[in-house]
Amino acid sequence: MRHALLAAAAALALALALPASAQQDTETRPGPADIVNAAPQEDWVVIPPEDLLVMTLAPDAEGNAREVVIQLMPPPFSQGWVENIRLLARERWYDGTSVNRVQDNYVVQWGDPNYDNPEAAGKPKPLPEGLKVMGEEEYSQPYLKATAFPAMSFAEDAEFFRTLCVVENPGTPAEEETCFEEEVWPPPTQFARGWAFATNSRDAWPVHCYGMVGVGRNYSPDTGSGAELYTVIGHAPRHLDRNIALIGRVIGGMEHLSSLPRGKGELGFYSAEERDKRTPILSVRIASELPEEERPLYEYLSTESDIFARYAEARANRRDAFFITPAGGADICNIPVPVRAFEYAGGE
Amino acid sequence: MRHALLAAAAALALALALPASAQQDTETRPGPADIVNAAPQEDWVVIPPEDLLVMTLAPDAEGNAREVVIQLMPPPFSQGWVENIRLLARERWYDGTSVNRVQDNYVVQWGDPNYDNPEAAGKPKPLPEGLKVMGEEEYSQPYLKATAFPAMSFAEDAEFFRTLCVVENPGTPAEEETCFEEEVWPPPTQFARGWAFATNSRDAWPVHCYGMVGVGRNYSPDTGSGAELYTVIGHAPRHLDRNIALIGRVIGGMEHLSSLPRGKGELGFYSAEERDKRTPILSVRIASELPEEERPLYEYLSTESDIFARYAEARANRRDAFFITPAGGADICNIPVPVRAFEYAGGE
Repeated sequence: MRHALLAAAAALALALALPASAQQDTETRPGPADIVNAAPQEDWVVIPPEDLLVMTLAPDAEGNAREVVIQLMPPPFSQGWVENIRLLARERWYDGTSVNRVQDNYVVQWGDPNYDNPEAAGKPKPLPEGLKVMGEEEYSQPYLKATAFPAMSFAEDAEFFRTLCVVENPGTPAEEETCFEEEVWPPPTQFARGWAFATNSRDAWPVHCYGMVGVGRNYSPDTGSGAELYTVIGHAPRHLDRNIALIGRVIGGMEHLSSLPRGKGELGFYSAEERDKRTPILSVRIASELPEEERPLYEYLSTESDIFARYAEARANRRDAFFITPAGGADICNIPVPVRAFEYAGGE
Repeated sequence: MRHALLAAAAALALALALPASAQQDTETRPGPADIVNAAPQEDWVVIPPEDLLVMTLAPDAEGNAREVVIQLMPPPFSQGWVENIRLLARERWYDGTSVNRVQDNYVVQWGDPNYDNPEAAGKPKPLPEGLKVMGEEEYSQPYLKATAFPAMSFAEDAEFFRTLCVVENPGTPAEEETCFEEEVWPPPTQFARGWAFATNSRDAWPVHCYGMVGVGRNYSPDTGSGAELYTVIGHAPRHLDRNIALIGRVIGGMEHLSSLPRGKGELGFYSAEERDKRTPILSVRIASELPEEERPLYEYLSTESDIFARYAEARANRRDAFFITPAGGADICNIPVPVRAFEYAGGE
């Protein structure tokens, strides 16, 4: 059965509905994982080794290796920071740094333990030459440039702004009403080329979902170099969108960061008494710098594929055996883009 | 300066805007924590000891004590399961059980390691007599009953449903359009008596935010007894709303659950090879059962207070020194109700 869907409110791009016939029956349907597992190989996009960052942590207490793999964000987003991070990795700058901050339901942060750390015990490590200085305007990309990003498109009738009126000093002689246009919350979101974005018709920007990696910074207008990085380990802190640069996401070994002991110091930094809890970072390498046989191989499910649309719909309307009431929609951060490691089969 | 706010779209209850004058200036304003810290004592509501569940885990590898405190949900929500949990605690049923499942960006689950566990190695522990059997209809409460819940009210013009039309077999002789009403996504949300709820004008139900505690169950129509519990350790899995009973939230010691090693078995259960990773639960007690000097004391910021409204507004529009672009709104799960432990001062 083929069907086309006409949503009354196009702005609700993620309010993905089942056809009426499916809503009314109680039949069990494939779950999101079943749909993804059945995707044909041509729907999977190999991530180039230049876009993979391999971070090797010191082994855990039991001697198990801990490797974290980060996928860097593609152009036109955050490229100044991404280039800085590649430079820092090539210069081996990250080697010997550590995970210094673990704040529950918020972020894990790594880099120089003496950079902007309330528990610093020494001088910051010098940065290599050639790092770009980025501006806050780079947190998002102009709409026109972003729409040139293959596969990104915006519904023409999406609602980006609303009129809001404020009455000051109500019921007094000084009562005054002022109206202004404000961005709608939440902003419309969409997937393009394997990533989730939010938009306001002027700009598009990546969103702070679980596992996203961003650039630690000091107070504005410092936007950070990329030497200090963090990943989200809790509910999506969307208030950070357009306030910090997002440069990628953890696609492998997330549990090595999310399960670290929480820091007891300010902002979740490890306090002076618990410096031994800092996890040493042995090395950070761009995968293309590694010998071919050591490179991790990852691919993501094309967000432009029909299978992805079906997967997103199934995330929004769970109908697998466990579920009773489909939600009728899903937060963009509850539709993680499927990413998987694969082995090089050779000869292809 | 007093101001009243008239939002164009009342359904966007959490799109909390600053007055125009504040939007236009660049002055730094108090952050959410500053606002909460300045709340007067009368805005804090003491949690009754009958509503506090104290779960003592085995000490960690370094010998540190691990205590988790759960606040149980007040009537009229989920009370059958809450009563079961109080019974199980009084009967000492949880003592000697363990944390058996830790799935990254999803849940930590504890209870009988042999209940519905793909890695079970023995028979399930018998349950005490007198447990209630609950139905799926108890996952939410009827609107009229819920509005009788003090302080809960719904905007009359909120949008709960939308019309959706589906075209089947488009462009063929069998083309047919069917229209139906569907709940809007996300459903309108609000705070009442210290908790977050979603609504659809017929029903109200608690939402799966970080740290919320729910009742593990098998396939529907089994709704679980309360012997098997879980808490959310990642992005809010809102697709579980109205599909599982929520009975409370972790208000103390969350880090003892969220930082546990992730399980390598199916669904994040510890596999047969890693049974030693299960964290033993030494005891679970209702605080009112403990000697008075051992009872933990907690209070939450009244969600009906002006300070809470200011806190929620500040979460939605960060203006403290670090921030540049206020979001203009916040997901309900990004406005955690402030809860704090306090010491009994005596004599009051």
